[in-house]
Amino acid sequence: MDLVVVMRSTATPEEKDAVTQRIGDLGLRAHAADGEFRTMISATGSKSVTVIQQLEQLAGVDRVITVTQPYRLASREFHEADTIIDVKGIRIGGPHVNVIAGPCAIESRELLFEVGQAVKDAGASILRGGAFKPRTSPYAFQGMGVEGLKLLKEASDALNMPTITEVTDPRDVEVVAQYADIFQIGARNMQNFNLLLEVGKTDKAVFIKRGMAASINELLMSAEYVLSQGNHRVIVCERGIRTFADEVRFTLDVSAVPVIQERSHLPVFVDPSHAAGKRDLVPPLAIAGVAAGAAGVIVEVHSCPEKALCDGPQAVLPMRFRQLMDELRLAAKLAGNRVTAWGEDGTKHRRVESGGWMS
Amino acid sequence: MDLVVVMRSTATPEEKDAVTQRIGDLGLRAHAADGEFRTMISATGSKSVTVIQQLEQLAGVDRVITVTQPYRLASREFHEADTIIDVKGIRIGGPHVNVIAGPCAIESRELLFEVGQAVKDAGASILRGGAFKPRTSPYAFQGMGVEGLKLLKEASDALNMPTITEVTDPRDVEVVAQYADIFQIGARNMQNFNLLLEVGKTDKAVFIKRGMAASINELLMSAEYVLSQGNHRVIVCERGIRTFADEVRFTLDVSAVPVIQERSHLPVFVDPSHAAGKRDLVPPLAIAGVAAGAAGVIVEVHSCPEKALCDGPQAVLPMRFRQLMDELRLAAKLAGNRVTAWGEDGTKHRRVESGGWMS
Amino acid sequence: MDLVVVMRSTATPEEKDAVTQRIGDLGLRAHAADGEFRTMISATGSKSVTVIQQLEQLAGVDRVITVTQPYRLASREFHEADTIIDVKGIRIGGPHVNVIAGPCAIESRELLFEVGQAVKDAGASILRGGAFKPRTSPYAFQGMGVEGLKLLKEASDALNMPTITEVTDPRDVEVVAQYADIFQIGARNMQNFNLLLEVGKTDKAVFIKRGMAASINELLMSAEYVLSQGNHRVIVCERGIRTFADEVRFTLDVSAVPVIQERSHLPVFVDPSHAAGKRDLVPPLAIAGVAAGAAGVIVEVHSCPEKALCDGPQAVLPMRFRQLMDELRLAAKLAGNRVTAWGEDGTKHRRVESGGWMS
Amino acid sequence: MDLVVVMRSTATPEEKDAVTQRIGDLGLRAHAADGEFRTMISATGSKSVTVIQQLEQLAGVDRVITVTQPYRLASREFHEADTIIDVKGIRIGGPHVNVIAGPCAIESRELLFEVGQAVKDAGASILRGGAFKPRTSPYAFQGMGVEGLKLLKEASDALNMPTITEVTDPRDVEVVAQYADIFQIGARNMQNFNLLLEVGKTDKAVFIKRGMAASINELLMSAEYVLSQGNHRVIVCERGIRTFADEVRFTLDVSAVPVIQERSHLPVFVDPSHAAGKRDLVPPLAIAGVAAGAAGVIVEVHSCPEKALCDGPQAVLPMRFRQLMDELRLAAKLAGNRVTAWGEDGTKHRRVESGGWMS
Repeated sequence: MDLVVVMRSTATPEEKDAVTQRIGDLGLRAHAADGEFRTMISATGSKSVTVIQQLEQLAGVDRVITVTQPYRLASREFHEADTIIDVKGIRIGGPHVNVIAGPCAIESRELLFEVGQAVKDAGASILRGGAFKPRTSPYAFQGMGVEGLKLLKEASDALNMPTITEVTDPRDVEVVAQYADIFQIGARNMQNFNLLLEVGKTDKAVFIKRGMAASINELLMSAEYVLSQGNHRVIVCERGIRTFADEVRFTLDVSAVPVIQERSHLPVFVDPSHAAGKRDLVPPLAIAGVAAGAAGVIVEVHSCPEKALCDGPQAVLPMRFRQLMDELRLAAKLAGNRVTAWGEDGTKHRRVESGGWMS
Repeated sequence: MDLVVVMRSTATPEEKDAVTQRIGDLGLRAHAADGEFRTMISATGSKSVTVIQQLEQLAGVDRVITVTQPYRLASREFHEADTIIDVKGIRIGGPHVNVIAGPCAIESRELLFEVGQAVKDAGASILRGGAFKPRTSPYAFQGMGVEGLKLLKEASDALNMPTITEVTDPRDVEVVAQYADIFQIGARNMQNFNLLLEVGKTDKAVFIKRGMAASINELLMSAEYVLSQGNHRVIVCERGIRTFADEVRFTLDVSAVPVIQERSHLPVFVDPSHAAGKRDLVPPLAIAGVAAGAAGVIVEVHSCPEKALCDGPQAVLPMRFRQLMDELRLAAKLAGNRVTAWGEDGTKHRRVESGGWMS
Repeated sequence: MDLVVVMRSTATPEEKDAVTQRIGDLGLRAHAADGEFRTMISATGSKSVTVIQQLEQLAGVDRVITVTQPYRLASREFHEADTIIDVKGIRIGGPHVNVIAGPCAIESRELLFEVGQAVKDAGASILRGGAFKPRTSPYAFQGMGVEGLKLLKEASDALNMPTITEVTDPRDVEVVAQYADIFQIGARNMQNFNLLLEVGKTDKAVFIKRGMAASINELLMSAEYVLSQGNHRVIVCERGIRTFADEVRFTLDVSAVPVIQERSHLPVFVDPSHAAGKRDLVPPLAIAGVAAGAAGVIVEVHSCPEKALCDGPQAVLPMRFRQLMDELRLAAKLAGNRVTAWGEDGTKHRRVESGGWMS
Repeated sequence: MDLVVVMRSTATPEEKDAVTQRIGDLGLRAHAADGEFRTMISATGSKSVTVIQQLEQLAGVDRVITVTQPYRLASREFHEADTIIDVKGIRIGGPHVNVIAGPCAIESRELLFEVGQAVKDAGASILRGGAFKPRTSPYAFQGMGVEGLKLLKEASDALNMPTITEVTDPRDVEVVAQYADIFQIGARNMQNFNLLLEVGKTDKAVFIKRGMAASINELLMSAEYVLSQGNHRVIVCERGIRTFADEVRFTLDVSAVPVIQERSHLPVFVDPSHAAGKRDLVPPLAIAGVAAGAAGVIVEVHSCPEKALCDGPQAVLPMRFRQLMDELRLAAKLAGNRVTAWGEDGTKHRRVESGGWMS
C-alpha cells in the first residue's frame, strides 16, 4: 500500500523539498512527479494512519491519498472523475466518444488527403496515419518517416483535424512532436519504458496501446510511466490480445473496457482493426466496444485496400466507414455517451479552457 | 473437400440405399444423417465434378453440395439462410433476439418462482435453471437433480415460459427431456461426444456452450455431432475463453459472434455471466454481444446473490436486469434485430408452423 | 480451510457415524469418503483449534488434518509421501519411471501385437491402445469399441503387460473394467464429473489427462472426484495446454511436473505425443519431462504411421522408440529415478503386497 | 518465396551493384545486407527457375538460395550447419552448452564479485548482471546504469569471464558496448526494432529473449533484424510465454527448443528463472531445457535473495547452483552435447580463429 501526497498548486519548491525530506525521515521512499500544476510525491512502504496525518499537516500539502494498486496517478483512487483531455478543441474521455480514422500507413499525399477527407466527412474527429511503421520483417515497408510526418501535418492543417501517429524510438520524440498532436505508443512498445519516459516529458497527448500479452495492470503501469513525468494527457487502448483463438488476428478483450474504467480515470479506446485483421469484422467489434462504454475507436480506412502497403486486409472502405459512423452514434447513445464529430454538434472550433484531469 | 447429398423429402428408403450404394461404388465413404424431413448422405473423399454430376442424376436426390469445412450440416455452404428454431412458439435465430434468464442453480421453489416472475416481467423469453450442476469440487453443491427438474417444469407451466437446463450425463437425457424444453450442454461437456449423440437423437433444442479452450471450428463440429443424428435444432453459445487475462473469469470472445455467423447458419448466443464472473461486468458484455449481432444472451439473475449456492458473485439483481432489458432492446435494434419478449410483440402464443432450418 | 478426519483402519461404522454426527453438531458440513482401508470424513468450514482437538479425541479417529487447498485427499498435506500404485506387479510413482506405449487406436489384431511386442522388447512396461476414440468430427473413425477391448486383453495376456485404454462414457465403465487394467480419462473428459465418479467406484487405476485449458488445481480436483469415491489409485498426466503458440499442437507445460509434485502425492506423467503432434518433437519432450522428474511418459508408437486411422503424424516408429528408451533411462537417472522395465530389473513378475498410498 | 543471393567474399562493390541492378531489372525488390565477409542480397517476389539461373551467372555471385520462411539469414535453408559464436574464446552453439549465471541486477560491487566467483567456481562460463533494468513500475529500482556497467567490466576482468547485460534504449548501445561482451535484448524489447537495428550495427554478440507472446517466427524475424545489419552473432532464448496457467510466472515452452533448431541455425537458450518465478522450479526447468537440446541456460543466482532489489524469489542460491551444474552436465551429455566450463575442459583461454556462422 502506497501513499500519494498531492501538493497545492501554490506550493513552493521549498515546501516540496520539506515534504520529501519528511517522507525520508519517516523511513519511507519518496518519488516526485511534477505535473502541469502540481507535484505529486508518492511514498512507498507507508501504512499507518499517523503517517498520513503527519504528512497532511505539512505546508503546501493539499491531500494525502492511499492507493492499493501498483499504479497511483492512473488510479480511480487518486482521481475519481473521468479524465477529459483536450486536443485542439476535441474533448476526449468522459461522455465524449471520438472516432480516430485514417490509413494504416501514410503512403502518399493523395491517399492521405483522400482518406482524410472521407473520414472527416463521415464524422471522424481525429486523423491517423503511420510514418514510422514497426514491422515484424526488416524487409517490409517501414514507413515514409519524416516525409510522412510532414504530409500528416499538411493534412491536419487542410482538414482542420488533430492527428495521431506512432513513435517507436525515444530519439524520434522531438521530431514527431513537431508535426503530430497525439503520440501513439504501439502494442510492441507498451513496455519500452524509455520511450514512455520521453513522451512523458512532453505536453502532447499519449495514446498507449495494450501489449498483446499485457495484463490491464501492466497497461496502467505503462500509463503511470508517462503520468509520473508530469504528462497527464494519457489515453489507453485495448487492441486485442493473443490467445489460442486463431480465427482472428487478436482476440478483442471487450471486458477490458469496463475493467479499466473501474480501475482508472483515463479514457479507454478500442482498436477493432488490429484485433480483427479482417475488414468484415471491424464494424461489429467497433460497435461492441462503444456499446460497452469505450471512449472511442481507432479504425483503419483505405480507399484502395488491395494496394495498401501495410495491413490492407483490415482496412475498411470509406463507404462502409460512413455507415459505421451512424452505427457508432447509436452505440454511444446506448452507453450514455455521444460521438464527438465534425459538422454535427458544433464542437469543431470550440476550444475548452481547462486541460485534462487536473482541472 | 466433402460432398453432401441432400435427398428430396419424398425420397424412398430404396432411393437412399441406391445413393449410398453408388457412393461406395465410386470409392467414397458414405455417412447417412436422417433429418426430420430429409436424409443427408455425406461422401468423404470426393473431388471431381463428374462425381457430383453422377450423384445429382440419381432418383430422389434434391441437390449435391460441396463443403470445404470439416463440418457439413452446420455450414453456411450447406444452408445459406439463418436457422430459426421454434421452441413453444418462441422463435430463436435470424432477426429474433432472445434473452434467457434465471438463477444459476435451482435452489428452492420460492427462489425459482420469484426470479422467474421477475425475468418474465422484464421481458426474458426463456427461463434457465440448473438441476444437475457440474462443479469443479466434489464437495460443492451438485444441484437438486430430478427434484429440481420438476420445479422447473412447474415454473415453466405457471409462467408460460419455455425452459433450458443443463444435462451432463447421457443417462440423464431421457429424464431431462421429460421436464425441460432445451438441453444445455455446458462448456466442460462440449466435447462429451456420447452426450452430444444422445441429445442428437431427441427432438428437443440443444444449446451448446463453447469450451473454454475450444476453437470455433471445434464448437461447430460439436454442433455437427447433434445435427448428424437428425436433430437440427442447435444453438451455439460463446461463453468466454481461457486466456492469460485474469481480470475476468473468462475472456468473452465477442468476435466469435460475427465469425460463427459467417461460417454457420446456427443461432449464436453469448453468456456474459460466466465470462465476467462479476455482476458489474455482465451488462456491458451482454450489450456488446447483442450489439455485435448475437441472437441472444443467457444471463444469471438472483434475488439474493449473497446466499446463492452457486456463482452468486456473477448474478445480476432483478432490478438491474430490468434496466438491462431496455439496453438490450436498443442493442438489438442497432444490429438490425429485435428482442423477442413476452407481452411486447404478441409472439407469445403464436406457434410457427414449420420447424427449424429445413423450412 | 477444511479439515480431513482420517479414521483408523479398525474404526467401526458406529464410530464413523459418531464422528459425522459430531461434525454436524459443530455446525460444519461432513462429507464421507470410503477408502480401501479407512474412511476419511472431511468437514468444510471449520477453523478453530478447539474443533480439531475435539474431533481428535473421538473414538476411531486416527488424526485430523488441516488442508488449505480445495483438494484434500489429493494434497501433500493429507499424504506426505509419494503414492506408489501397483498394477499387476508394475509399480507406478515414487522413484519408479514407467513408459506406457502402443498405438493411438486399436486398428487390428496384427498392428496391436506387432507394436505391442516392439514396445515391450524396447522396455515399455504398460501397453496403450484406444477402443473408444473421442474424435472432433462425427465422421472420423470412432474406434473398434468392445471388439478392440477384447484384442487389447488378448495382447495383454500374450505379452504379459498391463494395459490402459480410454473410457469416455459412464455407461462403458463396466465393460472397460472387464478388459483393461487402467482407465484413461482423456483431456476432453477431465471435467466429465459423472465419468470420474463412476471410475472412482471401481478398484482399477485411473489415469487422468489434464484438460487443454485446465489449471493444475482443476486437474487435482478431478483426481479428488475419483479419490472421494474411495479409489485412491490415481495418476495424473500433463499432455500439453492450449496457448497462442501454434508451432505445436499443444504447449507441453513441463513446469506442471514439479508444481504438481509439490502440491500432490499422486504420480504425474507427461504425454509428449499429443502435445507435440509431430513425431520428431516427441523424443525431446519425453526426455525433458522425465528429466524434470515425471513418473513416466505415455507415447504413441505405430509401425506404419502413414496408414494409421488416428493421429499418425505424431506416432513414433518402433526403431526410434527403442533409442528413446535408452535416453529415458538416462533422463530418469538424472532425476534420481529409474525406469521400470521388462527384462531389465526383474520386476516383471514381482507382485507388491500392499496397494497404493495408504500403505 | 524469396531468394537470397550470397556474394563471394571477393566480390567487388561494382559486382554487388550489378546484381542489385539486375534484380531491379527483373522486376524484383532488392535488399542488401553486409556481413563481415560477404554481402547478401535478397530479392523479394521472385519465383521462377530462370531468374535463379540468371542471377547465379552474374560475376561475384557465390550461390542463390530459395527461402520459404519470412526470415532468410536466420533460416536453416540459408545456413545448414549450427552457428557457433565465439565470445572471448567461449564457443556458443553447436555441441557446446554454456551456462550464463549471475545476479538479476548489479546491486553492489560486493554482491557482483561474490556471486561471480561462486558461479565461475561452479562452472558457469558467462557472467550476467543487469545495469539497466526495465521494470513494470516507474517506482521500482531501475538499475545502477553506467556505474553498474563499470562494475560488470571490473568483475569480467577479475574473473576472466565474458559478460552479458541488457540494453533497452538505442541511445545506450554505444556505452553498453564499451563495457559488456554480449547485448541482451529483453522479452519486452524483442520487437523494439530500432534497438535491434542498432545492436545489429555493432560486432558484439546479441542475445534475444522471446517476447512473452511472440511466436517462434516472430522471434526469428527479430533475429533477422540484427542479421540483416551484418551482425551474425545472434543467440535466441526461450524464457516462458504467457498462458492461462498461473501457477508459474510464465510457461516455459520447452518445445520451442527443437522447433527453433529445426528452423534456424542460431543457438537457442532457455531462461528457467524468469519462466518459473520461483527458485525451486528453476533446476527442473533448466535440466529439461538442456536435456531437450538447448545450447545453454541463463540462470539468476543470488547469495542473499531475500535482500535482492529485483526478482529475489526466483534467484537460486550458490550452493544449489553448484549442484545444478552437475545435473546440467548430465543433461547435456544426454542430448549429445557438453557443458563448456571453466577449469574443466581447457577451453578457458583457447581462442577460436574464425567467427560465427560465416566460417
